[in-house]
Amino acid sequence: MLNVGLLGAGRIAGVHATAISTNAGSRLAAVSDINAEAAAKLATQYGTTARSTDDILADSSINAVLIATSTDTHSDLIERATAAGKAVLCEKPVDLSLARAQACAKAVAKTGRPVMIGFNRRFDPNFAALKSSLDKGEIGKAELLSITSFDPAPPPVAYIKVSGGLFRDMMIHDFDMANFIMGAAPVSVSAVGSSIVDAAIGAAGDVDTAVVTLTYADGRIAVIKNSRRAVYGYDQRVELLGSEGLLQAQNMLENTVVKSTTAGVTGAKPTYFFLERYMPAYAAEWAAFVTAVTTNSALPVTLADGVAALAMAEAATLSAKSGAPVKLATVTA
Amino acid sequence: MLNVGLLGAGRIAGVHATAISTNAGSRLAAVSDINAEAAAKLATQYGTTARSTDDILADSSINAVLIATSTDTHSDLIERATAAGKAVLCEKPVDLSLARAQACAKAVAKTGRPVMIGFNRRFDPNFAALKSSLDKGEIGKAELLSITSFDPAPPPVAYIKVSGGLFRDMMIHDFDMANFIMGAAPVSVSAVGSSIVDAAIGAAGDVDTAVVTLTYADGRIAVIKNSRRAVYGYDQRVELLGSEGLLQAQNMLENTVVKSTTAGVTGAKPTYFFLERYMPAYAAEWAAFVTAVTTNSALPVTLADGVAALAMAEAATLSAKSGAPVKLATVTA
Amino acid sequence: MLNVGLLGAGRIAGVHATAISTNAGSRLAAVSDINAEAAAKLATQYGTTARSTDDILADSSINAVLIATSTDTHSDLIERATAAGKAVLCEKPVDLSLARAQACAKAVAKTGRPVMIGFNRRFDPNFAALKSSLDKGEIGKAELLSITSFDPAPPPVAYIKVSGGLFRDMMIHDFDMANFIMGAAPVSVSAVGSSIVDAAIGAAGDVDTAVVTLTYADGRIAVIKNSRRAVYGYDQRVELLGSEGLLQAQNMLENTVVKSTTAGVTGAKPTYFFLERYMPAYAAEWAAFVTAVTTNSALPVTLADGVAALAMAEAATLSAKSGAPVKLATVTA
Amino acid sequence: MLNVGLLGAGRIAGVHATAISTNAGSRLAAVSDINAEAAAKLATQYGTTARSTDDILADSSINAVLIATSTDTHSDLIERATAAGKAVLCEKPVDLSLARAQACAKAVAKTGRPVMIGFNRRFDPNFAALKSSLDKGEIGKAELLSITSFDPAPPPVAYIKVSGGLFRDMMIHDFDMANFIMGAAPVSVSAVGSSIVDAAIGAAGDVDTAVVTLTYADGRIAVIKNSRRAVYGYDQRVELLGSEGLLQAQNMLENTVVKSTTAGVTGAKPTYFFLERYMPAYAAEWAAFVTAVTTNSALPVTLADGVAALAMAEAATLSAKSGAPVKLATVTA
Repeated sequence: MLNVGLLGAGRIAGVHATAISTNAGSRLAAVSDINAEAAAKLATQYGTTARSTDDILADSSINAVLIATSTDTHSDLIERATAAGKAVLCEKPVDLSLARAQACAKAVAKTGRPVMIGFNRRFDPNFAALKSSLDKGEIGKAELLSITSFDPAPPPVAYIKVSGGLFRDMMIHDFDMANFIMGAAPVSVSAVGSSIVDAAIGAAGDVDTAVVTLTYADGRIAVIKNSRRAVYGYDQRVELLGSEGLLQAQNMLENTVVKSTTAGVTGAKPTYFFLERYMPAYAAEWAAFVTAVTTNSALPVTLADGVAALAMAEAATLSAKSGAPVKLATVTA
Repeated sequence: MLNVGLLGAGRIAGVHATAISTNAGSRLAAVSDINAEAAAKLATQYGTTARSTDDILADSSINAVLIATSTDTHSDLIERATAAGKAVLCEKPVDLSLARAQACAKAVAKTGRPVMIGFNRRFDPNFAALKSSLDKGEIGKAELLSITSFDPAPPPVAYIKVSGGLFRDMMIHDFDMANFIMGAAPVSVSAVGSSIVDAAIGAAGDVDTAVVTLTYADGRIAVIKNSRRAVYGYDQRVELLGSEGLLQAQNMLENTVVKSTTAGVTGAKPTYFFLERYMPAYAAEWAAFVTAVTTNSALPVTLADGVAALAMAEAATLSAKSGAPVKLATVTA
Repeated sequence: MLNVGLLGAGRIAGVHATAISTNAGSRLAAVSDINAEAAAKLATQYGTTARSTDDILADSSINAVLIATSTDTHSDLIERATAAGKAVLCEKPVDLSLARAQACAKAVAKTGRPVMIGFNRRFDPNFAALKSSLDKGEIGKAELLSITSFDPAPPPVAYIKVSGGLFRDMMIHDFDMANFIMGAAPVSVSAVGSSIVDAAIGAAGDVDTAVVTLTYADGRIAVIKNSRRAVYGYDQRVELLGSEGLLQAQNMLENTVVKSTTAGVTGAKPTYFFLERYMPAYAAEWAAFVTAVTTNSALPVTLADGVAALAMAEAATLSAKSGAPVKLATVTA
Repeated sequence: MLNVGLLGAGRIAGVHATAISTNAGSRLAAVSDINAEAAAKLATQYGTTARSTDDILADSSINAVLIATSTDTHSDLIERATAAGKAVLCEKPVDLSLARAQACAKAVAKTGRPVMIGFNRRFDPNFAALKSSLDKGEIGKAELLSITSFDPAPPPVAYIKVSGGLFRDMMIHDFDMANFIMGAAPVSVSAVGSSIVDAAIGAAGDVDTAVVTLTYADGRIAVIKNSRRAVYGYDQRVELLGSEGLLQAQNMLENTVVKSTTAGVTGAKPTYFFLERYMPAYAAEWAAFVTAVTTNSALPVTLADGVAALAMAEAATLSAKSGAPVKLATVTA
């Protein structure tokens, strides 16, 4: 039984609290947050106590922490928690700075503690089934990967300004998805982007629509498409052409009702946003973490995976600015 | 090469003229119609001549006739054409009177000439593929058949009055489809119907919405649903549950475009009516007739099939009136 | 806050325990079962205590009971619980005997306590969305309803023998669905059935494949199809033709992955059985019960609904045996 | 009535011969081919005569020619036919050399004769419906276009060697589709390609898998994906994200039958190749040409469109070799 300290008490922390509580192998032992009221409320709802982060890290009865705080605290908390002997599941990204994330990985390596990064989409039943089908050889060898990832609506410009930019904030999930499916890092990253959805996003120095092409040493190619706005809902699809077929993971819909009238044949929209779409993925992600930590087996997503995705985001950011492809090696070196 | 006389020059005759002309094994030799103008126009369009029906039947260079005249002339023309030695493809139904159709079948039998009834839906690529899958054993043994057959809009009440009623005029196609799929006649026919679409249809003594349940000697069951009005278009589906799976032949759509907006995910409607939906079926039907006649092999649909479907329509009409199931044997005896 | 006693500790009781525990308006106060071990285990898992049914009913701090025991105990427990002042949610069916269920309804009426019957499918997001669309007038007036309800595999013959037969045990859910959609009881019930899936089911006096046609006073028609075996999974669909369109609630699938190979284009199967398919429905059902009871508002499904569905099952059983339609009034009189 | 000379008697010429013959506004007046036997056979089948190209061009009773010869003859024949006063529909591409195509356009301009290039996909009912929906404003303003275009199997390497390469031979259709949908030429073209399907294609200096990203002056982006091999059939899809929604034109399937078994839910494959998929498009293309020429109205696709697509192919070829984006203006200047 893992005794878990939850660092953070915001919306996503609530999702994790449910996963921790309903998993038979884990127990929510404590919650902390800089907002004491939020921490207290979450603790009450899940029958646990609100404590300080220091307290939680110092408590040797707590085996693991789940870090769901703001991005700028991730690296520090990962280092402190592993130094204190905890197993860690940390929300993505590791950090907005690649150098800081790389330093964090070195520090963690010295502790030998397991750190998993919360790339929850790997645990989505649809993407996991696609990957499983590929691994069974059902479409032969992978050749051409396409990832479509559109948010329903752009975040406030104030958020955009501190987000690290679309490639680090939004597409980072898709970079990890590419790594998950392709099982290798790309050689080169070529990005184009524009602020066609909202000029204010462009004025803030970011893009809201982007396409990234990845090439691999063995000739494979991947394309990632991002938009900050798909008015019909959260559009999350993966498509993979292989030597013996095609795999497509399509959107989940709000319901299965289809209406046929003189106006056409209309079905439900995709589930609206990530909480609706990825709720089962969060539970599966936590279950995988608990299993790996309690059985001392390999984590399904590692801190190195977090660093790798961040390096791709860095390369894409550079490429979109320069207008030329960027070799990933020039970024990670 | 079949030299073909086309009896009738209405809308459906035009469809058949195209099929005859584009088939490499047949040639449109002549057209007749009680409306001389219509016959002349069709003849000109297809590079042939308009003649009288008597002429066509008397012309020994004409091997086959396609009967696309009004229903009340079918039995007579079948008898005359076969007596004149022609091979015949006749539009459904054989006759509105079961007794007359049975007499026609006896007369034809004496001539030994091949007569095929135009149950074109057997040649629809979708229904044909469903039947082929069943015959290959892909869903094991058939158990429960469902046929959905809705017209886009009811015909004029004037037509309803001379149509023979929904079961003889509209559901007859579905009775033949049941016979095609099940490969056997049912034991009993149980019908309910109402005039919920248009009270004037009820006032004319007919129904516009009906459900018929067929039971088979070996325990299989079939259900046929008819409505004279599906505002979204021609709804033509077949679904078959078997011991090892389910087969569904779905509607053909006007195009494959799907639009996702805040209002939902909308695709195209089914093709509007029988000419759009069954155009490929008419060509395939004619090709099958040509092949069978020119190679002296068995016809894929026979006059006996036409009589069988008519008997089921008769039984359904009786059942809907009496409110009790009707044994098919009591009708055909 | 409802304090809830859960009567029964079997598989479906576990589902209800989760719903009670996670609903913010209810609390699992106690569990009872004739199998003391099962009750103790469930109580431990959900942090409550196992007590006797007598104890629970006598405890005035418990406001509501959820009855998830075997069918033969339902009527008695409903009567005892309402006499003790509890609000009740009872699993379907009320009883296998229509007379007993009617007597139960009379007894309950005297107590004035609210009793809801667990027709969980009304709370399925898909069927609920279909009903909502109908109620908004999106397809005009209802005309022809079709319900497809196939189990993945037949139960053991030993179960069949005590089940009350397919119409009472399995199709009862579909009778209630028809009542839910149509908003009225039918006038006549016409049933055919056979034991084509498993001859042993026929030998036990039951059918495994059945079709029931319902007619309504205003001319509407409904068809229900049941099979005990659809090897591809739990097949639960509703389709409604209206004067201005068609609504279809389709199956939920295990995932959204589609694979295209030389063998065709293959997607996932429907979710396997009722726990997978209806898990969200159980939670929504409980939430609706809690809301109605705590706000003293009308229950969305009543004991009268349970009696009505049972009467239709009785009529269908009679019709399948006699081979003739049965007026519902002759059964309920 | 257009009297039409058909130049070429190969497979695609046969498709055009049917379109010319069945269109009420045109008549197949003559056929020519360097293979006299092929020309004679086609002429016989369609009831016309085989003549020399010189003869056809010299015959003043022939108003229009359809050029369906090998690519290397297109520019010359367009120039000769327009000089002879004919209206021209020429199969794509205009030429493999951009300079030659540009010279051809200049020569044609002097004659004032109408020349349409055979980008048949614009007339596909699905892509045409998508474009129509966009033009009606149904998804607001276009933002991000994706074109998927996979052949079922690669051509022989011998063909590859004379094809001009994937970008000129295969993706040229997709460049025109982008121009059709976006209504503007892109500013820059960025291409990656590899020979992952067949190493022999790489050895011949070509690629078999490629991704091209196009950027537009107003911030819009388009992505085109090509593969020479999709074993499940011809994969031809267009997807367009707009400010108010998404449009997707999906594949056409061989039939609508769906089979559900323990192995999953399987539907038919896409139609196999371009003749099956685009047969209706060829007829619609010809009809549009006849209408424009006989009413002296604007052609829906012009020679300039053919040159524009070729320029994009040139830019993509350069970009794939250099590894850097290419400004379209540097190619067309």
